[in-house]
Amino acid sequence: MTIRALIFDVFGTLVDWRSSIAQDAKTLLSPLGINTDWGAFADAWRAQYQPAMEKIRSGQRGFCKLDELHRDNLDTVLTQLGWQHVDVSTRETLNHCWHHLDQWAEVKQGLSLLRQTCILAPCSNGHIALMVNLARHNHWHWDAITGAEIARDYKPQAIVYQASATALGFLPEETMMVAAHSDDLKAAARAGLKTAFIARPDEHGPGLGESVSSTPVDYSAKDLLDLAKQLGGK
Amino acid sequence: MTIRALIFDVFGTLVDWRSSIAQDAKTLLSPLGINTDWGAFADAWRAQYQPAMEKIRSGQRGFCKLDELHRDNLDTVLTQLGWQHVDVSTRETLNHCWHHLDQWAEVKQGLSLLRQTCILAPCSNGHIALMVNLARHNHWHWDAITGAEIARDYKPQAIVYQASATALGFLPEETMMVAAHSDDLKAAARAGLKTAFIARPDEHGPGLGESVSSTPVDYSAKDLLDLAKQLGGK
Repeated sequence: MTIRALIFDVFGTLVDWRSSIAQDAKTLLSPLGINTDWGAFADAWRAQYQPAMEKIRSGQRGFCKLDELHRDNLDTVLTQLGWQHVDVSTRETLNHCWHHLDQWAEVKQGLSLLRQTCILAPCSNGHIALMVNLARHNHWHWDAITGAEIARDYKPQAIVYQASATALGFLPEETMMVAAHSDDLKAAARAGLKTAFIARPDEHGPGLGESVSSTPVDYSAKDLLDLAKQLGGK
Repeated sequence: MTIRALIFDVFGTLVDWRSSIAQDAKTLLSPLGINTDWGAFADAWRAQYQPAMEKIRSGQRGFCKLDELHRDNLDTVLTQLGWQHVDVSTRETLNHCWHHLDQWAEVKQGLSLLRQTCILAPCSNGHIALMVNLARHNHWHWDAITGAEIARDYKPQAIVYQASATALGFLPEETMMVAAHSDDLKAAARAGLKTAFIARPDEHGPGLGESVSSTPVDYSAKDLLDLAKQLGGK
Protein backbone atom coordinates (compact mmCIF):
# COMPACT_ATOMS: atom_id res chain seq x y z
CA MET A 1 0.00 0.00 0.00
CA THR A 2 1.28 3.46 -0.92
CA ILE A 3 2.65 5.65 1.85
CA ARG A 4 0.48 8.76 1.92
CA ALA A 5 1.51 10.43 5.18
CA LEU A 6 4.71 10.73 7.18
CA ILE A 7 4.48 11.42 10.89
CA PHE A 8 7.58 12.40 12.81
CA ASP A 9 9.12 12.03 16.17
CA VAL A 10 10.52 15.47 16.99
CA PHE A 11 12.82 15.49 20.07
CA GLY A 12 16.05 13.91 18.86
CA THR A 13 14.80 13.08 15.37
CA LEU A 14 14.25 16.63 14.10
CA VAL A 15 15.79 18.79 16.82
CA ASP A 16 19.03 18.55 18.77
CA TRP A 17 17.34 19.01 22.16
CA ARG A 18 20.51 18.23 24.13
CA SER A 19 22.72 20.96 22.64
CA SER A 20 19.88 23.49 22.68
CA ILE A 21 18.92 22.88 26.30
CA ALA A 22 22.58 22.82 27.38
CA GLN A 23 23.19 26.19 25.71
CA ASP A 24 20.00 27.79 27.04
CA ALA A 25 20.58 26.48 30.57
CA LYS A 26 24.09 27.88 30.55
CA THR A 27 22.80 31.27 29.39
CA LEU A 28 20.08 31.38 32.05
CA LEU A 29 21.76 29.70 35.02
CA SER A 30 25.41 30.76 34.87
CA PRO A 31 24.49 34.37 35.82
CA LEU A 32 23.09 32.82 39.04
CA GLY A 33 26.55 31.51 39.89
CA ILE A 34 25.93 27.98 38.64
CA ASN A 35 28.63 26.21 36.69
CA THR A 36 28.34 22.63 35.58
CA ASP A 37 28.58 20.24 32.63
CA TRP A 38 25.59 21.66 30.75
CA GLY A 39 25.18 18.62 28.54
CA ALA A 40 24.92 16.50 31.66
CA PHE A 41 22.31 18.93 33.01
CA ALA A 42 20.25 18.47 29.83
CA ASP A 43 20.59 14.71 30.21
CA ALA A 44 19.48 14.85 33.84
CA TRP A 45 16.37 16.86 32.93
CA ARG A 46 15.58 14.56 30.04
CA ALA A 47 16.06 11.49 32.27
CA GLN A 48 12.88 12.48 34.12
CA TYR A 49 10.89 12.45 30.86
CA GLN A 50 9.91 8.78 30.55
CA PRO A 51 9.08 8.28 34.27
CA ALA A 52 6.82 11.37 34.19
CA MET A 53 4.94 10.14 31.11
CA GLU A 54 4.69 6.64 32.53
CA LYS A 55 2.41 7.95 35.26
CA ILE A 56 -0.01 9.08 32.55
CA ARG A 57 0.34 6.00 30.37
CA SER A 58 -0.41 3.82 33.39
CA GLY A 59 -3.45 5.89 34.34
CA GLN A 60 -1.89 7.04 37.63
CA ARG A 61 -2.19 10.67 36.47
CA GLY A 62 -4.65 12.26 34.01
CA PHE A 63 -3.39 13.55 30.68
CA CYS A 64 -1.60 16.89 30.84
CA LYS A 65 0.52 18.76 28.33
CA LEU A 66 4.25 18.19 28.16
CA ASP A 67 5.00 21.73 29.42
CA GLU A 68 3.58 20.69 32.77
CA LEU A 69 5.68 17.52 32.94
CA HIS A 70 8.82 19.38 31.86
CA ARG A 71 8.17 21.96 34.58
CA ASP A 72 7.70 19.33 37.31
CA ASN A 73 10.81 17.53 36.09
CA LEU A 74 12.83 20.72 36.18
CA ASP A 75 11.93 21.25 39.84
CA THR A 76 12.97 17.66 40.57
CA VAL A 77 16.33 18.09 38.87
CA LEU A 78 17.10 21.47 40.44
CA THR A 79 16.39 19.98 43.86
CA GLN A 80 18.57 16.94 43.10
CA LEU A 81 21.41 19.27 42.13
CA GLY A 82 20.97 21.50 45.18
CA TRP A 83 20.02 24.51 43.05
CA GLN A 84 16.83 25.42 44.90
CA HIS A 85 17.74 29.11 44.73
CA VAL A 86 16.80 29.27 41.03
CA ASP A 87 13.77 31.60 41.02
CA VAL A 88 10.37 30.76 39.56
CA SER A 89 10.68 33.23 36.70
CA THR A 90 13.97 31.65 35.55
CA ARG A 91 12.42 28.21 35.86
CA GLU A 92 9.50 29.28 33.64
CA THR A 93 11.84 30.79 31.06
CA LEU A 94 14.04 27.70 31.05
CA ASN A 95 11.00 25.45 30.70
CA HIS A 96 9.90 27.39 27.65
CA CYS A 97 13.26 26.66 25.96
CA TRP A 98 11.74 23.36 24.78
CA HIS A 99 9.63 25.54 22.44
CA HIS A 100 12.64 26.84 20.50
CA LEU A 101 15.06 23.97 20.14
CA ASP A 102 17.33 24.06 17.09
CA GLN A 103 16.93 21.55 14.29
CA TRP A 104 19.56 19.19 12.89
CA ALA A 105 21.21 20.74 9.86
CA GLU A 106 19.27 19.08 7.02
CA VAL A 107 15.77 18.99 8.53
CA LYS A 108 14.18 22.05 6.95
CA GLN A 109 15.27 21.01 3.46
CA GLY A 110 14.41 17.38 4.11
CA LEU A 111 10.86 18.13 5.24
CA SER A 112 10.37 20.40 2.26
CA LEU A 113 11.37 17.58 -0.12
CA LEU A 114 9.26 14.97 1.66
CA ARG A 115 6.24 17.28 1.60
CA GLN A 116 6.21 17.17 -2.20
CA THR A 117 4.81 13.65 -2.11
CA CYS A 118 3.37 13.08 1.37
CA ILE A 119 1.22 14.75 4.00
CA LEU A 120 3.49 15.66 6.94
CA ALA A 121 2.73 16.01 10.63
CA PRO A 122 4.61 15.65 13.88
CA CYS A 123 3.68 12.68 16.07
CA SER A 124 5.45 13.85 19.19
CA ASN A 125 4.77 13.70 22.89
CA GLY A 126 5.03 17.47 22.74
CA HIS A 127 1.68 19.27 22.67
CA ILE A 128 0.21 21.36 19.86
CA ALA A 129 1.45 24.78 21.05
CA LEU A 130 4.98 23.45 21.58
CA MET A 131 4.97 21.92 18.09
CA VAL A 132 3.68 25.18 16.59
CA ASN A 133 6.48 27.12 18.23
CA LEU A 134 9.19 24.64 17.17
CA ALA A 135 7.89 24.81 13.60
CA ARG A 136 7.95 28.61 13.63
CA HIS A 137 11.46 28.65 15.12
CA ASN A 138 12.81 26.23 12.53
CA HIS A 139 10.68 27.26 9.52
CA TRP A 140 8.88 23.97 8.98
CA HIS A 141 5.56 23.57 7.16
CA TRP A 142 3.38 20.91 8.78
CA ASP A 143 0.04 19.97 7.24
CA ALA A 144 -1.39 19.44 10.72
CA ILE A 145 -0.19 18.83 14.26
CA THR A 146 -0.90 15.30 15.44
CA GLY A 147 0.55 13.32 18.36
CA ALA A 148 -0.02 13.03 22.09
CA GLU A 149 -2.39 15.95 22.60
CA ILE A 150 -4.99 14.80 20.08
CA ALA A 151 -4.71 11.22 21.36
CA ARG A 152 -4.76 12.29 25.03
CA ASP A 153 -2.04 9.74 25.80
CA TYR A 154 1.72 9.43 25.34
CA LYS A 155 3.84 7.37 22.96
CA PRO A 156 4.60 4.50 22.78
CA GLN A 157 0.89 3.80 23.41
CA ALA A 158 -0.59 2.47 20.15
CA ILE A 159 -3.46 4.96 20.24
CA VAL A 160 -1.08 7.89 19.65
CA TYR A 161 0.18 6.53 16.30
CA GLN A 162 -3.27 5.33 15.25
CA ALA A 163 -5.08 8.55 16.20
CA SER A 164 -2.51 10.55 14.26
CA ALA A 165 -3.02 8.49 11.08
CA THR A 166 -6.80 8.63 11.48
CA ALA A 167 -6.81 12.41 12.01
CA LEU A 168 -4.97 12.84 8.72
CA GLY A 169 -7.53 10.62 7.00
CA PHE A 170 -5.29 7.60 6.42
CA LEU A 171 -5.08 3.97 7.47
CA PRO A 172 -2.15 3.04 9.72
CA GLU A 173 -0.56 1.10 6.82
CA GLU A 174 -0.70 4.23 4.60
CA THR A 175 1.18 6.17 7.28
CA MET A 176 4.87 5.97 8.13
CA MET A 177 6.39 6.86 11.48
CA VAL A 178 9.80 8.52 11.13
CA ALA A 179 12.05 8.43 14.20
CA ALA A 180 15.60 8.14 15.46
CA HIS A 181 14.53 5.78 18.25
CA SER A 182 14.03 2.04 17.88
CA ASP A 183 11.48 1.81 20.69
CA ASP A 184 9.28 4.43 19.04
CA LEU A 185 9.44 2.57 15.72
CA LYS A 186 8.81 -0.81 17.31
CA ALA A 187 5.62 0.55 18.89
CA ALA A 188 4.54 2.23 15.65
CA ALA A 189 5.01 -1.03 13.72
CA ARG A 190 2.95 -2.88 16.31
CA ALA A 191 0.23 -0.23 15.84
CA GLY A 192 0.17 -1.09 12.13
CA LEU A 193 2.23 1.77 10.69
CA LYS A 194 5.15 1.69 8.30
CA THR A 195 8.46 2.76 9.87
CA ALA A 196 11.53 4.74 8.88
CA PHE A 197 14.65 5.00 11.02
CA ILE A 198 16.78 8.15 10.90
CA ALA A 199 20.32 7.92 12.31
CA ARG A 200 21.10 10.59 14.90
CA PRO A 201 24.40 9.31 16.29
CA ASP A 202 25.05 12.48 18.29
CA GLU A 203 21.65 12.90 19.99
CA HIS A 204 22.95 12.12 23.47
CA GLY A 205 26.41 13.60 22.90
CA PRO A 206 29.03 12.69 20.27
CA GLY A 207 28.52 9.08 19.20
CA LEU A 208 25.99 8.37 21.95
CA GLY A 209 22.78 8.30 19.86
CA GLU A 210 21.36 5.49 17.73
CA SER A 211 23.14 4.90 14.41
CA VAL A 212 21.22 1.79 13.40
CA SER A 213 17.78 0.56 14.36
CA SER A 214 17.60 -2.36 16.74
CA THR A 215 14.14 -3.24 15.44
CA PRO A 216 13.13 -4.17 11.85
CA VAL A 217 12.04 -1.12 9.84
CA ASP A 218 10.74 -0.45 6.32
CA TYR A 219 13.36 2.23 5.64
CA SER A 220 16.64 3.13 7.29
CA ALA A 221 18.21 6.46 6.37
CA LYS A 222 21.20 8.48 7.46
CA ASP A 223 19.09 11.66 7.48
CA LEU A 224 15.89 13.14 5.99
CA LEU A 225 17.54 13.92 2.66
CA ASP A 226 18.52 10.28 2.38
CA LEU A 227 14.95 9.24 3.25
CA ALA A 228 13.56 11.58 0.59
CA LYS A 229 15.94 10.06 -1.93
CA GLN A 230 14.91 6.52 -1.00
CA LEU A 231 11.18 7.33 -1.14
CA GLY A 232 11.56 9.30 -4.35
CA GLY A 233 13.08 6.30 -6.03
CA LYS A 234 10.01 4.14 -5.41
CA MET B 1 -4.34 42.52 25.21
CA THR B 2 -2.36 41.81 22.06
CA ILE B 3 -3.87 39.49 19.47
CA ARG B 4 -1.47 36.58 19.11
CA ALA B 5 -3.50 34.08 17.10
CA LEU B 6 -6.13 34.27 14.38
CA ILE B 7 -8.52 31.36 13.94
CA PHE B 8 -10.68 31.16 10.85
CA ASP B 9 -14.05 29.99 9.75
CA VAL B 10 -13.43 28.26 6.43
CA PHE B 11 -16.66 27.44 4.52
CA GLY B 12 -17.81 30.77 3.13
CA THR B 13 -15.09 32.84 4.78
CA LEU B 14 -12.07 31.37 2.97
CA VAL B 15 -13.63 29.20 0.28
CA ASP B 16 -16.51 29.74 -2.12
CA TRP B 17 -18.21 26.44 -1.29
CA ARG B 18 -21.34 27.21 -3.33
CA SER B 19 -19.65 27.78 -6.69
CA SER B 20 -17.27 24.87 -6.15
CA ILE B 21 -19.97 22.38 -5.19
CA ALA B 22 -22.24 23.60 -8.00
CA GLN B 23 -19.48 23.08 -10.55
CA ASP B 24 -18.42 19.68 -9.21
CA ALA B 25 -22.01 18.44 -8.97
CA LYS B 26 -22.64 19.47 -12.55
CA THR B 27 -19.50 17.63 -13.69
CA LEU B 28 -20.41 14.46 -11.82
CA LEU B 29 -24.20 14.36 -12.16
CA SER B 30 -24.96 15.74 -15.61
CA PRO B 31 -23.46 12.61 -17.29
CA LEU B 32 -26.16 10.69 -15.39
CA GLY B 33 -28.83 12.65 -17.23
CA ILE B 34 -29.47 15.14 -14.43
CA ASN B 35 -29.94 18.79 -15.26
CA THR B 36 -30.84 21.38 -12.67
CA ASP B 37 -29.92 24.75 -11.18
CA TRP B 38 -26.58 23.63 -9.72
CA GLY B 39 -26.30 26.57 -7.34
CA ALA B 40 -29.70 25.61 -5.92
CA PHE B 41 -28.46 22.02 -5.55
CA ALA B 42 -25.45 23.28 -3.53
CA ASP B 43 -27.84 25.33 -1.40
CA ALA B 44 -30.10 22.32 -0.79
CA TRP B 45 -27.16 20.18 0.32
CA ARG B 46 -25.82 22.96 2.55
CA ALA B 47 -29.32 23.48 4.05
CA GLN B 48 -28.96 20.09 5.76
CA TYR B 49 -25.72 21.20 7.45
CA GLN B 50 -27.01 22.95 10.57
CA PRO B 51 -29.78 20.43 11.35
CA ALA B 52 -27.24 17.56 11.10
CA MET B 53 -24.80 19.27 13.47
CA GLU B 54 -27.60 20.20 15.84
CA LYS B 55 -28.11 16.51 16.62
CA ILE B 56 -24.51 16.39 17.85
CA ARG B 57 -24.59 19.73 19.67
CA SER B 58 -27.72 18.62 21.50
CA GLY B 59 -26.19 15.27 22.46
CA GLN B 60 -28.72 13.30 20.39
CA ARG B 61 -25.84 11.86 18.32
CA GLY B 62 -22.19 11.25 19.30
CA PHE B 63 -19.47 13.33 17.64
CA CYS B 64 -18.56 12.28 14.13
CA LYS B 65 -16.50 13.92 11.42
CA LEU B 66 -18.12 16.29 8.95
CA ASP B 67 -17.54 13.86 6.05
CA GLU B 68 -20.07 11.56 7.64
CA LEU B 69 -22.67 14.31 8.08
CA HIS B 70 -22.10 15.57 4.51
CA ARG B 71 -22.59 12.02 3.23
CA ASP B 72 -25.85 11.50 5.16
CA ASN B 73 -27.05 14.91 4.00
CA LEU B 74 -26.26 14.07 0.38
CA ASP B 75 -28.42 10.96 0.57
CA THR B 76 -31.23 13.05 2.05
CA VAL B 77 -31.03 15.64 -0.72
CA LEU B 78 -30.77 13.11 -3.56
CA THR B 79 -33.88 11.37 -2.23
CA GLN B 80 -35.70 14.71 -1.89
CA LEU B 81 -34.86 15.48 -5.53
CA GLY B 82 -35.87 12.01 -6.75
CA TRP B 83 -32.31 11.21 -7.87
CA GLN B 84 -32.02 7.87 -6.10
CA HIS B 85 -30.34 6.37 -9.17
CA VAL B 86 -27.07 8.17 -8.39
CA ASP B 87 -24.70 5.30 -7.56
CA VAL B 88 -22.68 4.96 -4.36
CA SER B 89 -19.34 5.59 -6.04
CA THR B 90 -20.56 8.91 -7.49
CA ARG B 91 -21.99 9.86 -4.09
CA GLU B 92 -18.60 9.18 -2.45
CA THR B 93 -16.76 11.20 -5.09
CA LEU B 94 -19.21 14.07 -4.79
CA ASN B 95 -18.93 14.01 -1.01
CA HIS B 96 -15.16 14.32 -1.27
CA CYS B 97 -15.56 17.55 -3.28
CA TRP B 98 -15.79 19.39 0.05
CA HIS B 99 -12.05 18.60 0.37
CA HIS B 100 -11.05 20.66 -2.66
CA LEU B 101 -13.21 23.75 -2.65
CA ASP B 102 -11.73 26.83 -4.29
CA GLN B 103 -10.71 29.86 -2.25
CA TRP B 104 -11.90 33.43 -2.68
CA ALA B 105 -9.43 35.37 -4.79
CA GLU B 106 -7.35 37.15 -2.11
CA VAL B 107 -7.20 34.43 0.54
CA LYS B 108 -3.78 32.90 -0.13
CA GLN B 109 -2.09 36.29 -0.13
CA GLY B 110 -4.12 37.48 2.83
CA LEU B 111 -3.22 34.49 5.01
CA SER B 112 0.42 34.88 4.07
CA LEU B 113 0.40 38.52 5.21
CA LEU B 114 -1.50 37.77 8.43
CA ARG B 115 0.92 34.93 9.25
CA GLN B 116 3.77 37.44 9.51
CA THR B 117 2.43 38.65 12.85
CA CYS B 118 0.04 35.99 14.15
CA ILE B 119 -0.27 32.24 14.60
CA LEU B 120 -2.93 31.00 12.15
CA ALA B 121 -5.27 28.03 12.35
CA PRO B 122 -8.67 27.11 10.97
CA CYS B 123 -11.51 26.90 13.49
CA SER B 124 -13.98 25.14 11.26
CA ASN B 125 -16.61 22.49 11.69
CA GLY B 126 -14.65 20.58 9.07
CA HIS B 127 -12.38 17.90 10.47
CA ILE B 128 -8.57 17.76 10.38
CA ALA B 129 -8.21 15.71 7.18
CA LEU B 130 -10.66 17.93 5.32
CA MET B 131 -8.80 21.04 6.47
CA VAL B 132 -5.46 19.51 5.44
CA ASN B 133 -6.80 18.80 1.96
CA LEU B 134 -8.32 22.27 1.54
CA ALA B 135 -5.00 23.80 2.60
CA ARG B 136 -3.08 21.67 0.10
CA HIS B 137 -5.57 22.50 -2.67
CA ASN B 138 -5.36 26.24 -2.02
CA HIS B 139 -1.71 26.49 -0.92
CA TRP B 140 -2.30 27.78 2.60
CA HIS B 141 0.18 27.46 5.46
CA TRP B 142 -1.59 26.79 8.76
CA ASP B 143 0.40 26.59 12.00
CA ALA B 144 -1.96 23.92 13.28
CA ILE B 145 -5.45 22.59 12.58
CA THR B 146 -7.90 23.46 15.34
CA GLY B 147 -11.71 23.45 15.36
CA ALA B 148 -14.50 20.92 15.81
CA GLU B 149 -12.46 17.71 15.73
CA ILE B 150 -10.12 18.64 18.56
CA ALA B 151 -13.06 19.99 20.59
CA ARG B 152 -15.28 16.98 19.76
CA ASP B 153 -18.24 19.33 19.29
CA TYR B 154 -19.51 21.74 16.66
CA LYS B 155 -19.59 25.53 16.47
CA PRO B 156 -21.22 27.65 17.74
CA GLN B 157 -20.62 25.73 20.99
CA ALA B 158 -18.24 27.83 23.14
CA ILE B 159 -15.90 24.88 23.71
CA VAL B 160 -14.87 24.85 20.04
CA TYR B 161 -13.49 28.40 20.13
CA GLN B 162 -11.97 27.99 23.57
CA ALA B 163 -10.35 24.63 22.85
CA SER B 164 -8.83 26.09 19.68
CA ALA B 165 -7.27 29.02 21.55
CA THR B 166 -6.03 26.74 24.32
CA ALA B 167 -4.48 24.26 21.87
CA LEU B 168 -2.46 27.08 20.35
CA GLY B 169 -1.30 28.13 23.81
CA PHE B 170 -3.28 31.36 24.08
CA LEU B 171 -6.02 32.84 26.18
CA PRO B 172 -9.38 33.44 24.45
CA GLU B 173 -8.76 37.21 24.61
CA GLU B 174 -5.42 36.81 22.81
CA THR B 175 -7.19 34.95 20.01
CA MET B 176 -9.38 36.42 17.28
CA MET B 177 -12.06 34.52 15.39
CA VAL B 178 -12.27 35.59 11.74
CA ALA B 179 -15.52 34.80 9.94
CA ALA B 180 -18.02 35.99 7.35
CA HIS B 181 -20.95 34.98 9.55
CA SER B 182 -22.42 37.07 12.36
CA ASP B 183 -23.70 34.07 14.32
CA ASP B 184 -20.22 32.52 14.40
CA LEU B 185 -18.70 35.79 15.62
CA LYS B 186 -21.42 36.35 18.19
CA ALA B 187 -20.68 32.93 19.69
CA ALA B 188 -16.92 33.52 19.58
CA ALA B 189 -17.32 36.83 21.41
CA ARG B 190 -19.45 35.15 24.05
CA ALA B 191 -16.67 32.58 24.45
CA GLY B 192 -14.25 35.42 25.22
CA LEU B 193 -12.49 35.78 21.88
CA LYS B 194 -11.83 38.87 19.80
CA THR B 195 -13.74 38.97 16.53
CA ALA B 196 -13.17 40.06 12.94
CA PHE B 197 -15.88 40.13 10.29
CA ILE B 198 -14.99 39.53 6.64
CA ALA B 199 -17.55 40.57 4.02
CA ARG B 200 -18.47 37.79 1.59
CA PRO B 201 -21.48 39.32 -0.16
CA ASP B 202 -21.61 36.57 -2.80
CA GLU B 203 -21.38 33.50 -0.56
CA HIS B 204 -24.94 32.36 -1.22
CA GLY B 205 -25.08 33.66 -4.77
CA PRO B 206 -24.56 37.23 -6.08
CA GLY B 207 -25.42 39.70 -3.30
CA LEU B 208 -26.89 37.01 -1.05
CA GLY B 209 -24.09 36.77 1.55
CA GLU B 210 -23.35 39.00 4.54
CA SER B 211 -21.83 42.39 3.70
CA VAL B 212 -21.91 43.78 7.23
CA SER B 213 -21.94 42.10 10.59
CA SER B 214 -25.20 42.13 12.51
CA THR B 215 -23.31 41.67 15.78
CA PRO B 216 -20.67 43.99 17.32
CA VAL B 217 -17.12 43.01 16.29
CA ASP B 218 -13.59 44.22 16.99
CA TYR B 219 -12.70 44.50 13.31
CA SER B 220 -14.76 44.62 10.15
CA ALA B 221 -12.96 44.15 6.85
CA LYS B 222 -13.90 43.85 3.22
CA ASP B 223 -11.48 40.95 2.78
CA LEU B 224 -8.32 39.43 4.33
CA LEU B 225 -6.02 41.98 2.74
CA ASP B 226 -8.07 44.73 4.34
CA LEU B 227 -7.88 42.91 7.69
CA ALA B 228 -4.08 42.58 7.37
CA LYS B 229 -3.88 46.30 6.66
CA GLN B 230 -6.03 47.17 9.68
CA LEU B 231 -4.05 44.89 11.99
CA GLY B 232 -0.71 46.04 10.60
CA GLY B 233 -1.59 49.61 11.45
CA LYS B 234 -1.97 48.82 15.17
